[in-house]
Amino acid sequence: MPDTGDRLYECERIGTNAGPRRDRVAVEEPMEVRVNGAPFAVVMRTPGADRDLAAGFLLAEDVIHGADEIGLIEYCLDADDEGRGNVLNVTVLGEAVTRLDDRLSNRRQVMMTASCGLCGRRTIESLRTRVPNVAADWTVPAALISSLPPALRQAQRVFEVTGGLHAAGLFDLEGGILRVAEDVGRHNAVDKITGRMLLEGKLPQSRAILQVSGRTSFELVQKALLAGIPMICAVSAPSSLAIDLAREAGITLCGFVRGESFNVYAHPERIT
Amino acid sequence: MPDTGDRLYECERIGTNAGPRRDRVAVEEPMEVRVNGAPFAVVMRTPGADRDLAAGFLLAEDVIHGADEIGLIEYCLDADDEGRGNVLNVTVLGEAVTRLDDRLSNRRQVMMTASCGLCGRRTIESLRTRVPNVAADWTVPAALISSLPPALRQAQRVFEVTGGLHAAGLFDLEGGILRVAEDVGRHNAVDKITGRMLLEGKLPQSRAILQVSGRTSFELVQKALLAGIPMICAVSAPSSLAIDLAREAGITLCGFVRGESFNVYAHPERIT
Repeated sequence: MPDTGDRLYECERIGTNAGPRRDRVAVEEPMEVRVNGAPFAVVMRTPGADRDLAAGFLLAEDVIHGADEIGLIEYCLDADDEGRGNVLNVTVLGEAVTRLDDRLSNRRQVMMTASCGLCGRRTIESLRTRVPNVAADWTVPAALISSLPPALRQAQRVFEVTGGLHAAGLFDLEGGILRVAEDVGRHNAVDKITGRMLLEGKLPQSRAILQVSGRTSFELVQKALLAGIPMICAVSAPSSLAIDLAREAGITLCGFVRGESFNVYAHPERIT
Repeated sequence: MPDTGDRLYECERIGTNAGPRRDRVAVEEPMEVRVNGAPFAVVMRTPGADRDLAAGFLLAEDVIHGADEIGLIEYCLDADDEGRGNVLNVTVLGEAVTRLDDRLSNRRQVMMTASCGLCGRRTIESLRTRVPNVAADWTVPAALISSLPPALRQAQRVFEVTGGLHAAGLFDLEGGILRVAEDVGRHNAVDKITGRMLLEGKLPQSRAILQVSGRTSFELVQKALLAGIPMICAVSAPSSLAIDLAREAGITLCGFVRGESFNVYAHPERIT
Protein backbone atom coordinates (compact mmCIF):
# COMPACT_ATOMS: atom_id res chain seq x y z
CA MET A 1 0.00 0.00 0.00
CA PRO A 2 1.34 3.48 -0.77
CA ASP A 3 2.12 5.82 2.08
CA THR A 4 -0.28 8.61 2.80
CA GLY A 5 0.60 12.18 3.70
CA ASP A 6 4.35 12.53 4.02
CA ARG A 7 7.53 10.43 3.86
CA LEU A 8 11.10 10.97 5.10
CA TYR A 9 13.90 11.60 2.57
CA GLU A 10 17.61 12.14 3.05
CA CYS A 11 18.76 15.49 1.69
CA GLU A 12 21.78 17.81 1.80
CA ARG A 13 21.24 21.19 3.40
CA ILE A 14 23.44 23.80 1.68
CA GLY A 15 24.28 27.25 3.02
CA THR A 16 23.79 26.68 6.71
CA ASN A 17 26.63 24.24 7.54
CA ALA A 18 23.94 21.77 8.49
CA GLY A 19 25.09 18.98 6.15
CA PRO A 20 22.93 15.91 5.50
CA ARG A 21 19.55 15.76 7.16
CA ARG A 22 16.17 14.08 6.81
CA ASP A 23 13.29 16.07 5.36
CA ARG A 24 9.60 15.25 5.34
CA VAL A 25 8.22 15.31 1.81
CA ALA A 26 4.62 15.23 0.56
CA VAL A 27 3.79 11.90 -1.08
CA GLU A 28 2.78 11.85 -4.75
CA GLU A 29 1.51 8.60 -6.33
CA PRO A 30 -0.49 7.85 -9.48
CA MET A 31 -4.11 6.80 -9.01
CA GLU A 32 -6.05 5.15 -11.79
CA VAL A 33 -9.76 5.87 -11.83
CA ARG A 34 -11.80 3.14 -13.53
CA VAL A 35 -15.48 3.56 -14.17
CA ASN A 36 -17.60 0.41 -14.44
CA GLY A 37 -14.37 -1.52 -14.95
CA ALA A 38 -12.98 0.56 -17.82
CA PRO A 39 -9.87 2.77 -17.39
CA PHE A 40 -10.96 6.42 -17.36
CA ALA A 41 -7.99 8.51 -16.18
CA VAL A 42 -4.75 8.52 -14.20
CA VAL A 43 -4.42 11.29 -11.61
CA MET A 44 -1.18 12.14 -9.78
CA ARG A 45 -2.26 12.69 -6.20
CA THR A 46 -1.36 12.50 -2.51
CA PRO A 47 -2.88 9.23 -1.21
CA GLY A 48 -5.71 9.66 1.29
CA ALA A 49 -9.40 10.47 0.76
CA ASP A 50 -9.13 8.55 -2.52
CA ARG A 51 -12.84 7.78 -2.74
CA ASP A 52 -13.65 11.45 -2.23
CA LEU A 53 -11.14 12.38 -4.93
CA ALA A 54 -12.57 9.87 -7.41
CA ALA A 55 -16.12 11.12 -6.81
CA GLY A 56 -15.13 14.80 -7.08
CA PHE A 57 -13.10 14.13 -10.19
CA LEU A 58 -16.02 12.39 -11.91
CA LEU A 59 -18.32 15.25 -10.88
CA ALA A 60 -15.94 17.77 -12.46
CA GLU A 61 -15.63 15.56 -15.56
CA ASP A 62 -19.45 15.60 -15.92
CA VAL A 63 -19.79 11.82 -15.57
CA ILE A 64 -21.81 11.88 -12.33
CA HIS A 65 -24.26 14.50 -11.07
CA GLY A 66 -25.21 13.13 -7.65
CA ALA A 67 -24.76 10.43 -5.03
CA ASP A 68 -27.67 8.39 -6.40
CA GLU A 69 -25.63 7.73 -9.55
CA ILE A 70 -22.81 6.02 -7.63
CA GLY A 71 -23.00 2.37 -6.65
CA LEU A 72 -19.70 1.26 -5.15
CA ILE A 73 -16.24 2.82 -5.04
CA GLU A 74 -13.71 0.11 -4.31
CA TYR A 75 -9.99 -0.51 -4.57
CA CYS A 76 -8.99 -3.06 -7.20
CA LEU A 77 -8.21 -6.27 -5.30
CA ASP A 78 -6.17 -8.20 -7.86
CA ALA A 79 -3.24 -5.76 -7.59
CA ASP A 80 0.02 -6.71 -5.93
CA ASP A 81 0.91 -5.12 -2.60
CA GLU A 82 2.63 -2.09 -4.02
CA GLY A 83 -0.15 -1.04 -6.37
CA ARG A 84 -3.08 -2.12 -4.26
CA GLY A 85 -4.09 1.32 -3.05
CA ASN A 86 -3.66 3.03 -6.40
CA VAL A 87 -6.49 1.67 -8.55
CA LEU A 88 -10.10 2.56 -7.76
CA ASN A 89 -13.15 1.31 -9.59
CA VAL A 90 -16.30 3.44 -9.47
CA THR A 91 -19.60 1.77 -10.33
CA VAL A 92 -22.00 4.33 -11.80
CA LEU A 93 -25.73 3.95 -12.35
CA GLY A 94 -28.64 5.50 -14.24
CA GLU A 95 -27.95 8.41 -16.57
CA ALA A 96 -24.27 8.40 -15.57
CA VAL A 97 -23.86 5.26 -17.68
CA THR A 98 -24.99 7.16 -20.77
CA ARG A 99 -22.71 10.11 -19.94
CA LEU A 100 -19.80 7.72 -19.45
CA ASP A 101 -20.39 6.09 -22.83
CA ASP A 102 -20.53 9.53 -24.47
CA ARG A 103 -17.27 10.48 -22.83
CA LEU A 104 -15.37 7.32 -23.67
CA SER A 105 -16.48 7.30 -27.30
CA ASN A 106 -16.23 11.02 -27.88
CA ARG A 107 -13.59 12.68 -25.71
CA ARG A 108 -14.25 16.15 -24.37
CA GLN A 109 -11.74 17.96 -26.49
CA VAL A 110 -13.59 16.84 -29.59
CA MET A 111 -17.01 17.79 -28.26
CA MET A 112 -15.92 21.20 -27.06
CA THR A 113 -14.40 22.29 -30.32
CA ALA A 114 -16.51 21.04 -33.18
CA SER A 115 -15.77 24.34 -34.93
CA CYS A 116 -12.53 26.25 -35.04
CA GLY A 117 -13.92 28.86 -32.66
CA LEU A 118 -12.52 27.93 -29.27
CA CYS A 119 -12.37 30.84 -26.85
CA GLY A 120 -12.98 31.64 -23.21
CA ARG A 121 -16.44 33.10 -23.77
CA ARG A 122 -17.70 30.01 -25.55
CA THR A 123 -16.05 27.72 -22.99
CA ILE A 124 -18.12 29.46 -20.32
CA GLU A 125 -21.30 29.32 -22.41
CA SER A 126 -20.84 25.61 -23.03
CA LEU A 127 -20.48 24.99 -19.28
CA ARG A 128 -23.49 27.13 -18.42
CA THR A 129 -25.84 25.29 -20.73
CA ARG A 130 -25.61 22.29 -18.40
CA VAL A 131 -25.23 23.93 -14.97
CA PRO A 132 -27.66 26.44 -13.39
CA ASN A 133 -26.25 29.53 -11.68
CA VAL A 134 -25.66 29.31 -7.96
CA ALA A 135 -28.45 30.81 -5.89
CA ALA A 136 -27.65 32.36 -2.50
CA ASP A 137 -28.96 35.56 -0.95
CA TRP A 138 -26.96 35.37 2.29
CA THR A 139 -24.21 37.77 3.31
CA VAL A 140 -21.11 37.47 5.50
CA PRO A 141 -18.99 40.20 7.13
CA ALA A 142 -15.56 40.98 5.64
CA ALA A 143 -13.90 39.95 8.91
CA LEU A 144 -15.17 36.39 8.48
CA ILE A 145 -13.40 36.14 5.12
CA SER A 146 -10.14 37.40 6.64
CA SER A 147 -10.38 34.63 9.26
CA LEU A 148 -10.43 31.79 6.73
CA PRO A 149 -6.75 31.54 5.64
CA PRO A 150 -5.38 31.20 9.20
CA ALA A 151 -8.13 28.70 10.04
CA LEU A 152 -7.28 26.62 6.96
CA ARG A 153 -3.57 26.78 7.68
CA GLN A 154 -4.13 25.57 11.21
CA ALA A 155 -6.10 22.58 9.93
CA GLN A 156 -3.40 21.53 7.45
CA ARG A 157 -1.58 18.67 9.06
CA VAL A 158 0.87 17.63 6.35
CA PHE A 159 1.75 21.10 5.07
CA GLU A 160 3.20 21.97 8.44
CA VAL A 161 5.88 19.29 8.10
CA THR A 162 6.47 19.30 4.34
CA GLY A 163 5.69 22.83 3.07
CA GLY A 164 4.61 21.03 -0.08
CA LEU A 165 0.85 20.63 -0.17
CA HIS A 166 -2.05 22.63 -1.49
CA ALA A 167 -5.10 22.86 0.74
CA ALA A 168 -8.79 23.53 0.27
CA GLY A 169 -11.33 24.05 3.00
CA LEU A 170 -15.11 24.26 3.02
CA PHE A 171 -16.44 26.64 5.67
CA ASP A 172 -19.92 27.42 6.93
CA LEU A 173 -21.28 30.98 7.14
CA GLU A 174 -20.01 31.38 10.72
CA GLY A 175 -16.46 30.49 9.64
CA GLY A 176 -16.60 26.93 11.03
CA ILE A 177 -14.74 24.21 9.13
CA LEU A 178 -16.95 21.69 7.33
CA ARG A 179 -14.14 19.82 5.54
CA VAL A 180 -10.43 20.21 4.78
CA ALA A 181 -8.35 18.41 2.14
CA GLU A 182 -4.67 18.47 1.19
CA ASP A 183 -2.93 17.31 -1.97
CA VAL A 184 0.16 17.92 -4.10
CA GLY A 185 -2.31 18.96 -6.81
CA ARG A 186 -4.45 21.99 -6.08
CA HIS A 187 -7.31 20.70 -8.24
CA ASN A 188 -7.27 17.42 -6.33
CA ALA A 189 -7.68 19.17 -2.98
CA VAL A 190 -10.91 20.76 -4.25
CA ASP A 191 -12.12 17.49 -5.82
CA LYS A 192 -11.61 15.75 -2.47
CA ILE A 193 -13.94 18.32 -0.87
CA THR A 194 -16.69 18.35 -3.50
CA GLY A 195 -16.48 14.56 -3.84
CA ARG A 196 -16.96 14.07 -0.11
CA MET A 197 -20.00 16.35 -0.09
CA LEU A 198 -21.41 14.50 -3.10
CA LEU A 199 -20.94 11.10 -1.44
CA GLU A 200 -22.71 12.38 1.68
CA GLY A 201 -25.62 13.61 -0.46
CA LYS A 202 -24.91 17.21 0.55
CA LEU A 203 -24.78 18.93 -2.84
CA PRO A 204 -25.44 21.69 -3.72
CA GLN A 205 -23.47 23.40 -0.93
CA SER A 206 -25.38 26.66 -1.20
CA ARG A 207 -24.52 27.90 2.32
CA ALA A 208 -20.75 27.42 2.25
CA ILE A 209 -17.49 29.16 1.31
CA LEU A 210 -14.56 27.46 -0.45
CA GLN A 211 -11.13 28.68 0.69
CA VAL A 212 -8.03 27.64 -1.29
CA SER A 213 -4.36 28.07 -0.50
CA GLY A 214 -3.19 29.18 -3.95
CA ARG A 215 -4.51 30.84 -7.07
CA THR A 216 -7.93 30.62 -8.68
CA SER A 217 -8.13 29.22 -12.22
CA PHE A 218 -11.10 28.64 -14.50
CA GLU A 219 -11.23 24.96 -13.55
CA LEU A 220 -11.39 25.75 -9.86
CA VAL A 221 -14.41 28.05 -10.32
CA GLN A 222 -15.96 25.36 -12.52
CA LYS A 223 -15.61 22.82 -9.69
CA ALA A 224 -17.25 25.23 -7.22
CA LEU A 225 -20.09 25.88 -9.65
CA LEU A 226 -20.74 22.16 -10.16
CA ALA A 227 -20.92 21.77 -6.38
CA GLY A 228 -23.22 24.80 -6.04
CA ILE A 229 -20.78 26.72 -3.80
CA PRO A 230 -21.56 30.48 -4.04
CA MET A 231 -18.26 31.92 -2.73
CA ILE A 232 -14.55 31.24 -3.39
CA CYS A 233 -11.73 32.87 -1.44
CA ALA A 234 -8.05 32.49 -2.37
CA VAL A 235 -4.77 33.57 -0.86
CA SER A 236 -3.41 34.44 -4.32
CA ALA A 237 -4.55 35.90 -7.63
CA PRO A 238 -7.37 34.78 -9.93
CA SER A 239 -7.00 34.34 -13.69
CA SER A 240 -9.06 36.35 -16.18
CA LEU A 241 -11.23 33.37 -17.10
CA ALA A 242 -11.84 32.55 -13.42
CA ILE A 243 -13.25 36.06 -12.96
CA ASP A 244 -15.32 35.88 -16.15
CA LEU A 245 -16.92 32.59 -15.09
CA ALA A 246 -17.56 33.72 -11.50
CA ARG A 247 -19.31 36.88 -12.75
CA GLU A 248 -21.47 34.90 -15.18
CA ALA A 249 -22.36 32.14 -12.73
CA GLY A 250 -23.22 34.29 -9.71
CA ILE A 251 -20.19 33.26 -7.63
CA THR A 252 -18.47 35.70 -5.26
CA LEU A 253 -14.72 35.58 -5.95
CA CYS A 254 -12.17 37.00 -3.49
CA GLY A 255 -8.42 37.07 -4.07
CA PHE A 256 -5.28 38.07 -2.17
CA VAL A 257 -7.03 37.33 1.14
CA ARG A 258 -4.12 38.26 3.42
CA GLY A 259 -4.24 39.90 6.82
CA GLU A 260 -7.23 42.24 7.07
CA SER A 261 -7.67 43.09 3.40
CA PHE A 262 -8.61 41.40 0.13
CA ASN A 263 -9.93 42.04 -3.39
CA VAL A 264 -13.42 41.08 -4.59
CA TYR A 265 -13.52 40.37 -8.33
CA ALA A 266 -17.10 39.15 -8.68
CA HIS A 267 -20.42 39.55 -6.83
CA PRO A 268 -19.32 41.69 -3.85
CA GLU A 269 -22.97 42.00 -2.75
CA ARG A 270 -22.54 38.98 -0.43
CA ILE A 271 -19.94 40.80 1.68
CA THR A 272 -20.98 43.36 4.30
CA MET B 1 -7.58 37.54 -31.03
CA PRO B 2 -7.17 36.84 -27.32
CA ASP B 3 -5.14 39.22 -25.18
CA THR B 4 -1.72 38.12 -24.09
CA GLY B 5 -0.19 38.58 -20.69
CA ASP B 6 -2.50 40.59 -18.51
CA ARG B 7 -5.83 42.41 -18.65
CA LEU B 8 -7.50 45.07 -16.48
CA TYR B 9 -10.49 44.14 -14.30
CA GLU B 10 -12.63 46.23 -11.97
CA CYS B 11 -12.55 44.97 -8.39
CA GLU B 12 -13.53 46.05 -4.88
CA ARG B 13 -10.71 46.49 -2.40
CA ILE B 14 -11.91 45.55 1.12
CA GLY B 15 -10.17 46.40 4.35
CA THR B 16 -8.18 49.46 3.29
CA ASN B 17 -10.97 52.01 2.57
CA ALA B 18 -9.73 52.04 -1.00
CA GLY B 19 -13.10 51.13 -2.58
CA PRO B 20 -13.36 50.14 -6.25
CA ARG B 21 -10.18 49.97 -8.26
CA ARG B 22 -8.74 48.35 -11.36
CA ASP B 23 -6.49 45.34 -11.01
CA ARG B 24 -4.25 43.72 -13.61
CA VAL B 25 -5.05 40.02 -13.95
CA ALA B 26 -3.16 37.25 -15.74
CA VAL B 27 -5.01 36.11 -18.86
CA GLU B 28 -6.20 32.49 -19.10
CA GLU B 29 -7.66 31.19 -22.37
CA PRO B 30 -8.20 27.68 -23.76
CA MET B 31 -5.89 26.56 -26.56
CA GLU B 32 -6.74 23.57 -28.71
CA VAL B 33 -3.75 21.61 -29.98
CA ARG B 34 -4.49 19.72 -33.18
CA VAL B 35 -1.98 17.30 -34.67
CA ASN B 36 -2.14 16.68 -38.41
CA GLY B 37 -5.62 18.20 -38.36
CA ALA B 38 -7.08 15.99 -35.62
CA PRO B 39 -8.02 17.40 -32.17
CA PHE B 40 -5.47 16.20 -29.61
CA ALA B 41 -5.98 18.22 -26.42
CA VAL B 42 -7.26 21.45 -24.94
CA VAL B 43 -4.84 23.29 -22.65
CA MET B 44 -5.81 26.24 -20.42
CA ARG B 45 -2.95 28.69 -20.82
CA THR B 46 -1.79 32.30 -20.86
CA PRO B 47 -1.60 33.32 -24.54
CA GLY B 48 1.89 34.03 -25.83
CA ALA B 49 4.65 31.64 -27.00
CA ASP B 50 1.84 29.34 -28.19
CA ARG B 51 4.01 27.53 -30.74
CA ASP B 52 6.62 26.85 -28.05
CA LEU B 53 3.89 25.56 -25.74
CA ALA B 54 2.43 23.26 -28.40
CA ALA B 55 5.87 21.81 -29.20
CA GLY B 56 6.81 21.34 -25.53
CA PHE B 57 3.43 19.78 -24.77
CA LEU B 58 3.80 17.25 -27.60
CA LEU B 59 7.34 16.46 -26.42
CA ALA B 60 6.04 15.74 -22.91
CA GLU B 61 3.17 13.67 -24.35
CA ASP B 62 5.72 11.54 -26.24
CA VAL B 63 4.34 12.42 -29.68
CA ILE B 64 7.46 14.22 -30.96
CA HIS B 65 11.10 13.60 -30.08
CA GLY B 66 12.87 16.33 -32.05
CA ALA B 67 12.59 19.34 -34.35
CA ASP B 68 12.97 17.17 -37.45
CA GLU B 69 9.62 15.59 -36.69
CA ILE B 70 7.76 18.91 -36.88
CA GLY B 71 6.64 20.38 -40.19
CA LEU B 72 4.53 23.46 -39.60
CA ILE B 73 2.87 24.90 -36.51
CA GLU B 74 0.12 27.27 -37.60
CA TYR B 75 -2.97 28.97 -36.21
CA CYS B 76 -6.23 27.70 -37.64
CA LEU B 77 -7.38 30.32 -40.14
CA ASP B 78 -11.06 29.50 -40.52
CA ALA B 79 -11.84 30.63 -36.98
CA ASP B 80 -13.76 33.81 -36.26
CA ASP B 81 -11.96 36.80 -34.74
CA GLU B 82 -12.46 35.79 -31.14
CA GLY B 83 -11.14 32.25 -31.45
CA ARG B 84 -8.50 32.86 -34.07
CA GLY B 85 -5.50 32.73 -31.78
CA ASN B 86 -6.70 29.73 -29.77
CA VAL B 87 -6.42 26.81 -32.19
CA LEU B 88 -3.03 25.58 -33.35
CA ASN B 89 -2.39 22.79 -35.81
CA VAL B 90 0.94 20.97 -35.60
CA THR B 91 2.06 18.97 -38.63
CA VAL B 92 4.24 16.07 -37.56
CA LEU B 93 6.44 13.87 -39.72
CA GLY B 94 8.27 10.53 -39.72
CA GLU B 95 7.99 8.31 -36.66
CA ALA B 96 5.89 10.93 -34.88
CA VAL B 97 3.00 9.96 -37.17
CA THR B 98 3.13 6.39 -35.84
CA ARG B 99 3.36 7.61 -32.24
CA LEU B 100 0.37 9.90 -32.82
CA ASP B 101 -1.71 7.05 -34.21
CA ASP B 102 -0.81 4.92 -31.20
CA ARG B 103 -1.83 7.69 -28.87
CA LEU B 104 -5.13 8.50 -30.54
CA SER B 105 -6.21 4.87 -30.78
CA ASN B 106 -4.88 3.76 -27.41
CA ARG B 107 -4.84 6.54 -24.85
CA ARG B 108 -2.01 6.62 -22.35
CA GLN B 109 -4.02 5.72 -19.29
CA VAL B 110 -4.85 2.39 -20.92
CA MET B 111 -1.27 1.68 -21.97
CA MET B 112 0.20 2.54 -18.60
CA THR B 113 -2.05 0.26 -16.62
CA ALA B 114 -2.62 -2.94 -18.49
CA SER B 115 -2.47 -4.73 -15.15
CA CYS B 116 -3.92 -3.62 -11.86
CA GLY B 117 -0.47 -2.74 -10.58
CA LEU B 118 -0.12 1.00 -10.98
CA CYS B 119 2.41 2.58 -8.62
CA GLY B 120 5.07 5.24 -8.56
CA ARG B 121 7.97 2.82 -9.04
CA ARG B 122 6.48 1.30 -12.17
CA THR B 123 5.49 4.72 -13.51
CA ILE B 124 9.18 5.68 -13.31
CA GLU B 125 10.32 2.40 -14.87
CA SER B 126 7.90 2.82 -17.75
CA LEU B 127 9.25 6.32 -18.44
CA ARG B 128 12.86 5.21 -18.23
CA THR B 129 12.48 2.45 -20.79
CA ARG B 130 12.09 5.12 -23.45
CA VAL B 131 14.34 7.93 -22.17
CA PRO B 132 18.07 7.63 -21.42
CA ASN B 133 19.44 9.15 -18.22
CA VAL B 134 20.81 12.66 -18.43
CA ALA B 135 24.57 12.80 -18.77
CA ALA B 136 26.49 15.76 -17.33
CA ASP B 137 29.74 15.85 -15.39
CA TRP B 138 29.89 19.60 -14.83
CA THR B 139 29.60 21.32 -11.46
CA VAL B 140 28.38 24.75 -10.32
CA PRO B 141 29.00 26.62 -7.06
CA ALA B 142 26.18 26.84 -4.51
CA ALA B 143 26.16 30.63 -4.83
CA LEU B 144 25.15 30.35 -8.48
CA ILE B 145 22.04 28.39 -7.51
CA SER B 146 21.11 31.00 -4.90
CA SER B 147 21.30 33.67 -7.61
CA LEU B 148 18.66 32.03 -9.84
CA PRO B 149 15.38 32.92 -8.06
CA PRO B 150 16.05 36.69 -7.98
CA ALA B 151 17.23 36.57 -11.60
CA LEU B 152 14.06 34.76 -12.65
CA ARG B 153 11.84 37.14 -10.69
CA GLN B 154 13.48 40.12 -12.33
CA ALA B 155 12.82 38.67 -15.77
CA GLN B 156 9.11 38.06 -15.07
CA ARG B 157 7.26 40.89 -16.73
CA VAL B 158 3.63 39.95 -16.11
CA PHE B 159 4.00 38.59 -12.59
CA GLU B 160 5.10 41.99 -11.40
CA VAL B 161 1.74 43.50 -12.31
CA THR B 162 -0.59 40.58 -11.63
CA GLY B 163 0.99 38.43 -8.93
CA GLY B 164 -0.71 35.55 -10.72
CA LEU B 165 1.74 33.75 -12.99
CA HIS B 166 4.09 30.84 -12.64
CA ALA B 167 7.51 31.23 -14.19
CA ALA B 168 10.22 28.93 -15.49
CA GLY B 169 13.69 29.96 -16.57
CA LEU B 170 16.48 28.12 -18.34
CA PHE B 171 19.93 29.27 -17.22
CA ASP B 172 23.44 28.52 -18.44
CA LEU B 173 26.21 27.35 -16.10
CA GLU B 174 27.33 30.93 -15.45
CA GLY B 175 23.81 31.91 -14.30
CA GLY B 176 22.92 33.73 -17.52
CA ILE B 177 19.31 33.52 -18.72
CA LEU B 178 18.75 31.43 -21.85
CA ARG B 179 14.95 31.62 -21.85
CA VAL B 180 12.11 32.67 -19.55
CA ALA B 181 8.42 31.75 -19.79
CA GLU B 182 5.35 32.70 -17.78
CA ASP B 183 1.93 31.06 -17.59
CA VAL B 184 -1.08 30.61 -15.31
CA GLY B 185 -0.20 26.91 -15.45
CA ARG B 186 3.15 25.89 -14.02
CA HIS B 187 3.47 22.93 -16.38
CA ASN B 188 2.83 25.23 -19.32
CA ALA B 189 5.68 27.54 -18.34
CA VAL B 190 8.10 24.60 -18.52
CA ASP B 191 6.57 23.32 -21.78
CA LYS B 192 7.11 26.78 -23.31
CA ILE B 193 10.81 26.52 -22.46
CA THR B 194 11.44 22.95 -23.60
CA GLY B 195 9.31 23.52 -26.70
CA ARG B 196 11.32 26.57 -27.68
CA MET B 197 14.58 24.68 -27.33
CA LEU B 198 13.15 21.79 -29.33
CA LEU B 199 12.03 24.10 -32.15
CA GLU B 200 15.49 25.66 -32.24
CA GLY B 201 17.07 22.19 -32.49
CA LYS B 202 18.80 22.70 -29.15
CA LEU B 203 17.81 19.50 -27.30
CA PRO B 204 19.16 17.89 -25.20
CA GLN B 205 20.00 20.90 -22.98
CA SER B 206 22.79 19.10 -21.14
CA ARG B 207 24.56 22.28 -19.98
CA ALA B 208 21.62 24.13 -18.45
CA ILE B 209 19.64 24.54 -15.22
CA LEU B 210 15.85 24.78 -15.02
CA GLN B 211 14.58 27.15 -12.31
CA VAL B 212 10.86 27.16 -11.44
CA SER B 213 8.84 29.52 -9.27
CA GLY B 214 6.79 26.91 -7.42
CA ARG B 215 6.94 23.28 -6.40
CA THR B 216 8.43 20.29 -8.19
CA SER B 217 6.09 17.46 -9.16
CA PHE B 218 6.78 14.19 -10.97
CA GLU B 219 5.59 15.67 -14.26
CA LEU B 220 7.97 18.59 -13.99
CA VAL B 221 10.99 16.29 -13.53
CA GLN B 222 9.68 14.20 -16.42
CA LYS B 223 9.66 17.29 -18.66
CA ALA B 224 13.24 18.14 -17.68
CA LEU B 225 14.33 14.57 -18.35
CA LEU B 226 12.74 14.56 -21.82
CA ALA B 227 14.63 17.78 -22.59
CA GLY B 228 17.90 16.36 -21.20
CA ILE B 229 18.22 19.07 -18.51
CA PRO B 230 20.45 17.74 -15.68
CA MET B 231 19.45 20.17 -12.88
CA ILE B 232 16.15 21.52 -11.51
CA CYS B 233 15.92 24.22 -8.84
CA ALA B 234 12.65 25.27 -7.22
CA VAL B 235 11.59 27.92 -4.75
CA SER B 236 9.28 25.44 -3.00
CA ALA B 237 9.10 21.76 -2.04
CA PRO B 238 9.40 18.68 -4.23
CA SER B 239 7.00 15.72 -4.07
CA SER B 240 8.16 12.21 -3.18
CA LEU B 241 7.82 10.96 -6.75
CA ALA B 242 9.73 13.97 -8.10
CA ILE B 243 12.66 13.01 -5.86
CA ASP B 244 12.41 9.32 -6.79
CA LEU B 245 12.52 10.11 -10.52
CA ALA B 246 15.35 12.65 -10.19
CA ARG B 247 17.48 10.11 -8.27
CA GLU B 248 16.82 7.39 -10.86
CA ALA B 249 17.39 9.59 -13.89
CA GLY B 250 20.56 11.35 -12.76
CA ILE B 251 18.97 14.79 -12.29
CA THR B 252 20.13 17.15 -9.53
CA LEU B 253 17.06 18.39 -7.65
CA CYS B 254 17.17 21.44 -5.36
CA GLY B 255 14.24 22.74 -3.32
CA PHE B 256 13.45 25.66 -1.02
CA VAL B 257 16.03 27.81 -2.85
CA ARG B 258 15.56 30.97 -0.79
CA GLY B 259 18.19 33.50 0.26
CA GLU B 260 21.57 31.81 0.71
CA SER B 261 20.41 28.29 1.54
CA PHE B 262 18.59 25.36 -0.11
CA ASN B 263 18.04 21.60 0.08
CA VAL B 264 19.45 19.09 -2.42
CA TYR B 265 17.27 15.99 -2.73
CA ALA B 266 19.07 14.20 -5.58
CA HIS B 267 22.57 14.11 -7.08
CA PRO B 268 24.33 16.77 -4.97
CA GLU B 269 27.66 15.91 -6.69
CA ARG B 270 27.06 18.70 -9.24
CA ILE B 271 27.16 21.38 -6.54
CA THR B 272 30.46 22.63 -5.11
